[in-house]
Amino acid sequence: MDETEIREVIEAKAAALPTGDVKTMLAYYASEVVEFSLAPPLRQEHDAHDPAPIEQWLTGFAAPPSREVTRLEITVGGDVAFATSLDCLRAVPKGSTEGFELWHRVTLGLRKIDGRWLVTHEHESVPFEMDGSFRASTGLKP
Amino acid sequence: MDETEIREVIEAKAAALPTGDVKTMLAYYASEVVEFSLAPPLRQEHDAHDPAPIEQWLTGFAAPPSREVTRLEITVGGDVAFATSLDCLRAVPKGSTEGFELWHRVTLGLRKIDGRWLVTHEHESVPFEMDGSFRASTGLKP
Repeated sequence: MDETEIREVIEAKAAALPTGDVKTMLAYYASEVVEFSLAPPLRQEHDAHDPAPIEQWLTGFAAPPSREVTRLEITVGGDVAFATSLDCLRAVPKGSTEGFELWHRVTLGLRKIDGRWLVTHEHESVPFEMDGSFRASTGLKP
Repeated sequence: MDETEIREVIEAKAAALPTGDVKTMLAYYASEVVEFSLAPPLRQEHDAHDPAPIEQWLTGFAAPPSREVTRLEITVGGDVAFATSLDCLRAVPKGSTEGFELWHRVTLGLRKIDGRWLVTHEHESVPFEMDGSFRASTGLKP
């Protein structure tokens, strides 16, 4: 039951992204979130209900990106859960005619707060090449 | 109480690394672990009690690396928990006179199995530069 609810949260959060409806996207987050995102810095702890950062991020694209969630696995205990998945972000940068896709790893930490499952931690990443180039492995596919 | 036990697991796991005692390190993991590691591939699901991968990794260094765990935050519910931290790996590559340090983000998923907290998910990463270089941000500090 809880696992179904969490799956719905994660799928609804992904479905909201291409609509560009920031308010709906942010409704799946708790008010305080520890975020390890694709871009620096290492760690952000911010008011996840502030729409400014995601609105700013969306301005970089011709249209809001889409998110495909695959290999989702959810582990629940009481009112705490974590979820792992491999997600694909597809987007067209503003001013570009060509889109890109970026497969990456996502770990979410969730808590059930006032009867609703909310994201309190988000860790998104790609690995990097250990060949001395230190290049992020942005071309991997599952 | 559970939070204290989890903190001890995480600190003991880090303390075991510079001893090179692989068996002790692996004792903190469940038999099946979903791993999103610093190096490719995107995702590994393996028998975490197989010492071969970590033994192979250790051969790249003049001595076993050390791990400093900072900003550790633990969220527990029943027999499931997740933990976030910023860790520093310090090591000297084999054949090199100079060491390096690598600050990175760590998210652990844990389950209490037969009365013991064990790691069932590990996500380690650095972000990457969004300046078109796609370079992993290996020089960040908290």
